[in-house]
Amino acid sequence: MTTRLATILADGKTRIGLVLDDGTALDGPAAARAAGVDPAPLSDMVATIRAWATLGPVLRAAAAKPPAGAVLAKGAFRLLAPIPRPAKNVFCVGRNYIEHVAEGDRAAGRETTEAPKYPQFFTKPPTAVIGPDETVPSYAAITRVLDYEVELALIIGTGGSDIAPDRAFDHIFGYTVANDITARDLQRRHGQWFKGKGLDRSCPLGPWIVPADEIASPPDLRISLTVNGEARQDSRTSQLLFDIPTIIATLSQGLTFEPGDIIATGTPSGVGYAMVPPRVLGPGDVIEATVEGIGTLTTRIVA
Amino acid sequence: MTTRLATILADGKTRIGLVLDDGTALDGPAAARAAGVDPAPLSDMVATIRAWATLGPVLRAAAAKPPAGAVLAKGAFRLLAPIPRPAKNVFCVGRNYIEHVAEGDRAAGRETTEAPKYPQFFTKPPTAVIGPDETVPSYAAITRVLDYEVELALIIGTGGSDIAPDRAFDHIFGYTVANDITARDLQRRHGQWFKGKGLDRSCPLGPWIVPADEIASPPDLRISLTVNGEARQDSRTSQLLFDIPTIIATLSQGLTFEPGDIIATGTPSGVGYAMVPPRVLGPGDVIEATVEGIGTLTTRIVA
Repeated sequence: MTTRLATILADGKTRIGLVLDDGTALDGPAAARAAGVDPAPLSDMVATIRAWATLGPVLRAAAAKPPAGAVLAKGAFRLLAPIPRPAKNVFCVGRNYIEHVAEGDRAAGRETTEAPKYPQFFTKPPTAVIGPDETVPSYAAITRVLDYEVELALIIGTGGSDIAPDRAFDHIFGYTVANDITARDLQRRHGQWFKGKGLDRSCPLGPWIVPADEIASPPDLRISLTVNGEARQDSRTSQLLFDIPTIIATLSQGLTFEPGDIIATGTPSGVGYAMVPPRVLGPGDVIEATVEGIGTLTTRIVA
Repeated sequence: MTTRLATILADGKTRIGLVLDDGTALDGPAAARAAGVDPAPLSDMVATIRAWATLGPVLRAAAAKPPAGAVLAKGAFRLLAPIPRPAKNVFCVGRNYIEHVAEGDRAAGRETTEAPKYPQFFTKPPTAVIGPDETVPSYAAITRVLDYEVELALIIGTGGSDIAPDRAFDHIFGYTVANDITARDLQRRHGQWFKGKGLDRSCPLGPWIVPADEIASPPDLRISLTVNGEARQDSRTSQLLFDIPTIIATLSQGLTFEPGDIIATGTPSGVGYAMVPPRVLGPGDVIEATVEGIGTLTTRIVA
């Protein structure tokens, strides 16, 4: 059974829990109390990550055999982003699948003569983070080219800087799915990408975190995205140009990671603006971003 | 008397206070208690900003006539960054003084044919923020071109998005000085600037915040920087290519500001890498970054 570690809203209260195979959810604090363990960290995902050595086994045992009163019925809860309010901007990697680099170059009328030599890093602010099954405005007044990008996102468990590539996976707590919603015209116009990548609600995240010990390292997972059911992106995370050890080693040089940091690792080809003719997102569009072994993150564009 | 609103460490405890003209400091919580006002927000700068309508008059009155026991002697305290741990990355504006644009183009062997049409935004993470009189490592293992950039930084007081240019100053709580320490080789190598701008301790901030009502709008302040006493940068904030209303209006389009957000507005010409021959920062160098009417932010490079 996959551990689907989620930030859950029920009865107006946020708590950490596990989404179970039948669509119900294990209430983390209730399960901890039943096991005689301090439930306090289970009000917050980053606190839960820090206490995972203790809480992980408790939650997994409880998921296999839920104690009385610790199950939330379907429809009695909804999921927030796994980390609803990150303590800093989300780290992101650009141009990290070669076919996406190539389609971007084609759209710009350039030839792709060689692969990028160094990874490109940018960020999205905490105000951009939203959870699964939420909406994103079309921002019709400020962009004409709203686009999607499915990405595998890493959740840092153990902080540190100057992390050696062969220790990178030791620092990863788990994985989730990100949709790096991007206003292409703003991205281009402002040179640096922050403006086009930083709009409110432009970083759907979730639906949950799968702990890293349940996913082979390095992850070789199908990564795909549909718009209104139509396939747009479809690749594998093994196709990353700069792999996870390289991302972590390069980004952490002289820069300290903290537990709960989020790193979106880049998107494969198939983005809308590079299609011929280009396709843009608009009101009513439903985007489903999927990473195999993790889950599907659904987002709807509204006016 | 200028209101120098600072985050102060004394007796191992952080508190908000005012640095007085004689170099002593008003202990904010003690002054609030003496005035019969709740001192709780004065443990944190963002809480203080939110409660400024009440606390501002109390602190200013106490600074004029400090109550008994509310003064910290010189040497009995030190200043931290005004906001030691921002709740998100620091927003930054690049290439925002024409002479700096021109010197960057010259260093890259390009001609400057016209001024940038749109502002460029990037960010520095909260882990980069340090206070006045602190040290920055030379990062000899990862960069050969460490450089400085004095900047006027805005502190947001009232949040909001889609802020009209003529309302921009209503959202500014105050001003401080930032030094956007930059690894030029990393900035260039990684395309997007985050890597070269994101190193630990690369965002000295302070020494304090001067509330906006003590500085004319728009600010026309001398902005300058020395290295080991030698003049390097010297301009005026009136020379911003994209002025403060434009920065705030453009950045807040579809992006929500929150109280305590920090916006570094860009640096004038005189940076080290664009000098002929280039000058880089190294161990022992002392950088003094000054904005008239605010103060001087001193930073030392160490091995």
